[in-house]
Amino acid sequence: MLYLALIHYPVKNRNNETIASAVTNLDIHDIARAGRTYGAQGFYVVTPLYDQRVLVGQILRHWETGAGSVYNRDRKEALSMTAVKSDLDAVIGDIRKETGKAPLLVATTAADCRATLSFDDFRQNLAKEERPWLLLFGTAWGLADEVIESADFLLEPISGKAGYNHLSVRSAASIILDRVLGR
Amino acid sequence: MLYLALIHYPVKNRNNETIASAVTNLDIHDIARAGRTYGAQGFYVVTPLYDQRVLVGQILRHWETGAGSVYNRDRKEALSMTAVKSDLDAVIGDIRKETGKAPLLVATTAADCRATLSFDDFRQNLAKEERPWLLLFGTAWGLADEVIESADFLLEPISGKAGYNHLSVRSAASIILDRVLGR
Repeated sequence: MLYLALIHYPVKNRNNETIASAVTNLDIHDIARAGRTYGAQGFYVVTPLYDQRVLVGQILRHWETGAGSVYNRDRKEALSMTAVKSDLDAVIGDIRKETGKAPLLVATTAADCRATLSFDDFRQNLAKEERPWLLLFGTAWGLADEVIESADFLLEPISGKAGYNHLSVRSAASIILDRVLGR
Repeated sequence: MLYLALIHYPVKNRNNETIASAVTNLDIHDIARAGRTYGAQGFYVVTPLYDQRVLVGQILRHWETGAGSVYNRDRKEALSMTAVKSDLDAVIGDIRKETGKAPLLVATTAADCRATLSFDDFRQNLAKEERPWLLLFGTAWGLADEVIESADFLLEPISGKAGYNHLSVRSAASIILDRVLGR
C-alpha cells in the first residue's frame, strides 16, 4: 500500500532557507492522475497555510462533486483519492486510521548521497504489502533537511545523463511511481 | 539521437474531433527539463497558431536571455534546447538540417492496440545511434489519427494498474524518457 504526500512546508527555497511554498494547481492534477494510474491508495496535499487549504478544497470539490465531475469523470476518479492536510502528522494519523498501521516514511531528493533505499528494494518491499508506505515529495527546492532526517528512508535520486537533474516534482513523482509500481 | 515534439495541431478533443489546442506553459518547462535530464537533443513545441508561437517565443526568450536566465540557470539550460515550429514538416526539416538525416517518427498514444514499437526495442534502437528519432506527444485528448498513421512507429502505451490510464502529457513524456533513456 503506497500513499503519496506533496509537501509545501517545510521545504527549501533557492537559498536553502526553509519556507512554505504556494500550491500549484497542476501538481495536484498530475500527481493524482499518476497515483491513480499506478494504484496508489491515497494522495495528500500538505500545507499549513489556511488560505491554501481552502483553495485546494475548492479545486477538489469542483472535480469531485461540482461541474468538473460531470465534465471529466476520469479526473473525478483521480481526485477522489486526494485530500488536503495541514501537516505530516495529520497525514500519518489518517493512514493509521485507514490501515491500522503507521506508515513507513520515504523521503525523496533530487541529488543526495545519503540515500538508504534503492528503487529495486522499494519495489520489492511494496510488493510484500506488509505495511503502508508514505512517499514524500518536496515542492520548491525540495524537502527541508528535518523532513529527510525524520523519514525512515531516503530514496535514491533519479539519475539523468550528463549530470543535469532538474525535473519538476510532477515529472519526478511520475517517474518514481513508474519505477516502483510500473510493469 | 532523440528529439521530442509536443503537438498542438492536429490533436483530438474529448469528442474525437480534430482541433488546435492552446499551449500550456508548464508543458514546455516540464518536458524541456525532462528532455535535458535524459539527454534528448532537442524539443519542439508545434502549433500553427501565430499568437501562440509568439507567446512561446516570449517565454523562451525570458528564460534564455531575459530576467529568467539570471534567476535560474538550470532552467535556461533546459529551455535553450527548445524551439517553436508551425508544423511537423518544419520540425523534420530542422532535424534534417542539423543531423543530415530525416528522423524516424514515433507517435505516442495512451491506449491503442496498434502499437508497433515496444519500449525495449525503442531503447535498443536509440542506443545504436544510427538515425535521429523524433518522438511525438499529443496535447488535449491525443494525436489525431492522421499523425499516428503518418508516423513510422506507434509506441506501446504506458500501462498502469486496474485499467485506469489517464496521465498528463507531462507525466507521460517523463516516464517514456525514463524508460527509453534512463538507467
